[in-house]
Amino acid sequence: MPADSLPTYADVEAAATVIEGRAHRTPVLRSRRLDERAGCEIHLKAEHLQRVGAFKFRGALNALSAFDAGQRRGGVIAYSSGNHAQAIALAARETGMPAVIVMPHDAPEAKVAATRGYGAEVVRYDRYTQDREQIAADLAAERGMTVVPPYDHPHVIAGQGTAVKELLEDSGALDVVVTPLGGGGLLSGSILAAGALAPRARVYGVEPAAGDDGRRSLREGRIVTIETPRTLADGAQTTHLGHLTFPIIRDGVTDVVTATDEELVGAMKVMAGILKQVVEPTGVLALAAVLSGAIPDTAGLRVGVLLSGGNVDLARFAELVGAP
Amino acid sequence: MPADSLPTYADVEAAATVIEGRAHRTPVLRSRRLDERAGCEIHLKAEHLQRVGAFKFRGALNALSAFDAGQRRGGVIAYSSGNHAQAIALAARETGMPAVIVMPHDAPEAKVAATRGYGAEVVRYDRYTQDREQIAADLAAERGMTVVPPYDHPHVIAGQGTAVKELLEDSGALDVVVTPLGGGGLLSGSILAAGALAPRARVYGVEPAAGDDGRRSLREGRIVTIETPRTLADGAQTTHLGHLTFPIIRDGVTDVVTATDEELVGAMKVMAGILKQVVEPTGVLALAAVLSGAIPDTAGLRVGVLLSGGNVDLARFAELVGAP
Repeated sequence: MPADSLPTYADVEAAATVIEGRAHRTPVLRSRRLDERAGCEIHLKAEHLQRVGAFKFRGALNALSAFDAGQRRGGVIAYSSGNHAQAIALAARETGMPAVIVMPHDAPEAKVAATRGYGAEVVRYDRYTQDREQIAADLAAERGMTVVPPYDHPHVIAGQGTAVKELLEDSGALDVVVTPLGGGGLLSGSILAAGALAPRARVYGVEPAAGDDGRRSLREGRIVTIETPRTLADGAQTTHLGHLTFPIIRDGVTDVVTATDEELVGAMKVMAGILKQVVEPTGVLALAAVLSGAIPDTAGLRVGVLLSGGNVDLARFAELVGAP
Repeated sequence: MPADSLPTYADVEAAATVIEGRAHRTPVLRSRRLDERAGCEIHLKAEHLQRVGAFKFRGALNALSAFDAGQRRGGVIAYSSGNHAQAIALAARETGMPAVIVMPHDAPEAKVAATRGYGAEVVRYDRYTQDREQIAADLAAERGMTVVPPYDHPHVIAGQGTAVKELLEDSGALDVVVTPLGGGGLLSGSILAAGALAPRARVYGVEPAAGDDGRRSLREGRIVTIETPRTLADGAQTTHLGHLTFPIIRDGVTDVVTATDEELVGAMKVMAGILKQVVEPTGVLALAAVLSGAIPDTAGLRVGVLLSGGNVDLARFAELVGAP
């Protein structure tokens, strides 16, 4: 599949075969107390329990598994605010190739340490002044490595789609599917999976209120680029959708809604207090929107909610959920 | 079964039938990173994900299900530092009987609120000056209710044993089984289950270092009573083993070891940081002992670890895991 071709559900199915037994088939969590609070039946796909603590491992492993012999020798380079970095680092180790990760100076230390722990070389940059894509492209040319972008790549999108494929297989028909939205890899993969397995389900993306480029892109019918948003959801501090993710989202999403930082903290408290789960701020975007009522008309329905990751410094987590 | 007869594995099997479909069959969690850190293969029985957030629901539901018609009409009374209280309250609601819970003034507010939320009446007492058993006995006589003690009761012990029964069924043969130890309900039930299903497995109980009455009882061959210990492990602030739990533990346990409050906090951080799970201080007693090396000769072995509960105020949890 060329790097600029739109993936389809067949690619999600192929990805599912590639990652089977190598990525976790994460559980779907349920809670009577959560359902009572939300007024609907919530099925939580627990990707914070995925390897590297986030769904990103699915797309990374799928993309690296498609490398040819020459690409494997050269290795992989990735730029990421965190979870994609860890995912590429671990997938590179498991597929036996070198990896360089370009990470912002303000990425959570837990993510930087974990990335290095998987054997990758980390190159830092300033996310507010430098262009990570340019840094990665220069390093790739210099060292003969292949860049795997965090979302705008057909194998990455297809890999991310396996999470909602599993959710629909395990929970049965859902009326609504809600996922976090940053660059759109997870949402576009989810649209492909839901379109094939639950064509009548509504599919929503949820982005930080401080960075609603996805919603604006949908309204304006073109990719809108914004300044790097300042939000707790560090995994969704993207400035624009991709050339592959945008058309899939435009054609398949029901709507894009937002969640405030305050709503994210509230959802993290619900996850810790009721579900006993540690989920990072970006990871609860979808749940926060369901709890706030930003997703319309969910009463009594079966709602699939993707929890995307759990990688948050413990001290930071404690600061957020410990406040009254 | 009379209230003073020692339960056997047949009672654990009967309890498993009683609670099936009404208590959760909780998952067994695994983590490569945890195994690397511990140097053994750890199978975590996730009873913090049980209904009411603790294994106690198993024994409570089993005990109330055995009530006769007259007992059901009168209702149930229980004394507890927390999780047994919630368990009896929910089990009473589900079996349709009134419940009164005698709880200490310093019980975590989350536990008190949850107990009331299940519809039980809460009566408070001072754990350092008043005798909760006497308060419960007086109330029971006055109101015609039946006391279900937190651990020294054959149906309670048999119910708690179902957790290790499930663990052994799901994980296969284990070399070592480790559980928290307060009054001994969980440990004695675990001994019954392991004795039948994994007779070659070593079984350990872990109690707070500040309150090692179980270890001392084992050494002295009699039930040793101590002052109420001051420890983070509020669910194991018991002062003595029971007349039923002591002989089962004496005859079946490999050894009783201890964990310090500092080790408990370390284990809570491991659970939150690596496993993404919120577990209360008492809940990590067994894991803390495995990580500290208090359980001897575990290298390379298959070790079952019971996580007993997850009910901790979020602010308190944050204070503990957020500290450097």
